[in-house]
Amino acid sequence: MALDLAPLAQPAETRIVLVVMDGLGGYSDSQRGTELEEAATPNLDALAAEGAVGLVEPVGPGITPGSGPGHLGLFGYDPLEFELGRGVLSAAGLEVKLNAGDVAARGNLATLDSSGRITDRRAGRLPDPEASEVVARLSTEVKIDGVEVEFVHEAQHRVLVVLRGEGLDPGVADTDPQVTLAEPRVPVALHASAERTADVVSQLDEQVRTILADHPRANVLLLRGFDSHRALPSMQERYGLSPAAVAIYPMYRGIARLVGMDVLPRPADLDAQLAALKEHWDRFDYFFLHHKGTDSTGEDGDRPGKVAAVEALDAAIPSLRDLDPDVIVVTGDHSTPTQMAAHSWHPVPALIWAERVGRDEATRFGERWCRGGGLGLRPTKDLMPIALACAGRLAKYGA
Amino acid sequence: MALDLAPLAQPAETRIVLVVMDGLGGYSDSQRGTELEEAATPNLDALAAEGAVGLVEPVGPGITPGSGPGHLGLFGYDPLEFELGRGVLSAAGLEVKLNAGDVAARGNLATLDSSGRITDRRAGRLPDPEASEVVARLSTEVKIDGVEVEFVHEAQHRVLVVLRGEGLDPGVADTDPQVTLAEPRVPVALHASAERTADVVSQLDEQVRTILADHPRANVLLLRGFDSHRALPSMQERYGLSPAAVAIYPMYRGIARLVGMDVLPRPADLDAQLAALKEHWDRFDYFFLHHKGTDSTGEDGDRPGKVAAVEALDAAIPSLRDLDPDVIVVTGDHSTPTQMAAHSWHPVPALIWAERVGRDEATRFGERWCRGGGLGLRPTKDLMPIALACAGRLAKYGA
Repeated sequence: MALDLAPLAQPAETRIVLVVMDGLGGYSDSQRGTELEEAATPNLDALAAEGAVGLVEPVGPGITPGSGPGHLGLFGYDPLEFELGRGVLSAAGLEVKLNAGDVAARGNLATLDSSGRITDRRAGRLPDPEASEVVARLSTEVKIDGVEVEFVHEAQHRVLVVLRGEGLDPGVADTDPQVTLAEPRVPVALHASAERTADVVSQLDEQVRTILADHPRANVLLLRGFDSHRALPSMQERYGLSPAAVAIYPMYRGIARLVGMDVLPRPADLDAQLAALKEHWDRFDYFFLHHKGTDSTGEDGDRPGKVAAVEALDAAIPSLRDLDPDVIVVTGDHSTPTQMAAHSWHPVPALIWAERVGRDEATRFGERWCRGGGLGLRPTKDLMPIALACAGRLAKYGA
Repeated sequence: MALDLAPLAQPAETRIVLVVMDGLGGYSDSQRGTELEEAATPNLDALAAEGAVGLVEPVGPGITPGSGPGHLGLFGYDPLEFELGRGVLSAAGLEVKLNAGDVAARGNLATLDSSGRITDRRAGRLPDPEASEVVARLSTEVKIDGVEVEFVHEAQHRVLVVLRGEGLDPGVADTDPQVTLAEPRVPVALHASAERTADVVSQLDEQVRTILADHPRANVLLLRGFDSHRALPSMQERYGLSPAAVAIYPMYRGIARLVGMDVLPRPADLDAQLAALKEHWDRFDYFFLHHKGTDSTGEDGDRPGKVAAVEALDAAIPSLRDLDPDVIVVTGDHSTPTQMAAHSWHPVPALIWAERVGRDEATRFGERWCRGGGLGLRPTKDLMPIALACAGRLAKYGA
């Protein structure tokens, strides 16, 4: 049974900063330690020395999280209680408002060969101008009886699809098989009430193939993550916080918006993120700073790149400390070991720096020092109540 | 909230071996360390050095597990969600099929003195030939209106009792008080719907006492663990695995069967277990190897014996590694410290060896090295998803 924190929330003149190094965690093998262990991180090490460290699991032991559940955990929301489909995440990232009953899915423009098999799931990562032309054609030409279809170009091959109309149901299985040399899957209703929606998706698929038949690369749209908007309780309601997000990438901005954060104007880079933090420092009491470089390099299997991305974030810590925050949390939404070039289940290093966190013996930040640290091995969602407590924002429970 | 792994299960060409050293764990006291710490285990130490170690709790902190819940946890089934009565475990071990509505209990042939008090709960561990004669008499002579009663001899004083008929209910309290110099308990219905069954058990008890009145040692049958068959989801359904059990003792074979394992022909000893593993290696992707010696010596309070049983298993590790498994898990179903000569609640040492498990700093296998290891201190059931993840058998959760 999870404890509802709302009745315990108490106001305080304190500020919490959550620094998310996306995909931060790694693992040691016979060759070497993790990327974070290897990185030179004097500033993070100082936070670790003055604070407490540990390891966190975003969803559960052995479970590899997507970005949605990974971030919900960071914001203190149990990812098993609050699920977010890919379609909803994409819509949130694009600032496309979903109304009750709308169904959203993430689409990939992809390449089919003449036998109907997928040869490229990303249509050669179609350049934006070309992709947006394709999306414009789909927007004009796809017509389905009784359903309004909205196509919104995200970036490269990625497209958001929103279906609006009466009686739609998100219970449709992905048509994207997520492998090449397979055929796209036929849209299947996962339960009876989704049969009409599955039929709508079939019509959509057929029309898209006809419209794009002559395109050399993007001749099909693979769909996954059908979902409807679900209202999440806000961080204001749950914790009494006024939270702000300083994130560059659409998806993380979108997730932040779903939990009621004020999403600050899109910064261009880490320096701009720090500047935004400074500019809006007095207006909020919780800041979510998202650092993407650790994940994108991890996904590319680029170990030196990931080490450099960690070091870039480390260099930003002094500016952050200059703002005089009361609590700093540094961790990741999941691990992305360069050995795997993919998200993984490995526990993520975490540190909490605060006057009252309770120092442990760790003097460096990295997986091997986090084992046995004062924060222990925990679900990611438990970092939030500890941070709130360190910020003097949680009253006593019980008499 | 527990996560259902089935939707995440993905096929892989990998093999997992779970080595269960029954009753493995122990505890340090003012005299010395644990049995496992004392044992010379170069091969287990190598697995620990190349893998990750930790401590696991089968049921919960302070809870001493029976073999049923202990093993369910090892197979990734929450023992609090999936309960197995002793009767059902015995039936499974004896390959006695229980149909829906049948009620099974474990019986002990025991000795009552002339005042009706139990002087020996095991009737002097009645030798098998004598015990099976007693059981044959009961099978022939006990007659209860409207209920078919089946007695099956297990070994020594142990007997399975199965009641078959309309309207039976397993909600009957044990008649076995589990102490000597007490009288057997009167069968009591735990709820109204079990009143008829309690009455059947009373009649059974009365007839058994009459039939065995002249037996010098076995003159009563103490019953415990009334239960009905409950279908457990199979490991195939839950994880997409094709599992096989290589176990010698009936109960462990029975539990394995209950979770859908293919139970390989009964091997005579550890060498035969290894040979069976090798013979069937290509047919399965998950193997459960059960090693009993650590528990039986533990229960006897035989410290040198337990140390030797650990070392015997250690010597088998090279043959196991020769098969080239992808993941090896070594742990126990519970602790059996020789100081207590009984099952206990102490956390059980665990190791996972796999290319991607994430090495920690431990270079030996044993309680003191497992503390602070990379696996942390966890519920036993969490080992399964980690093993599946290391075997590449779990897809990402959420977008």
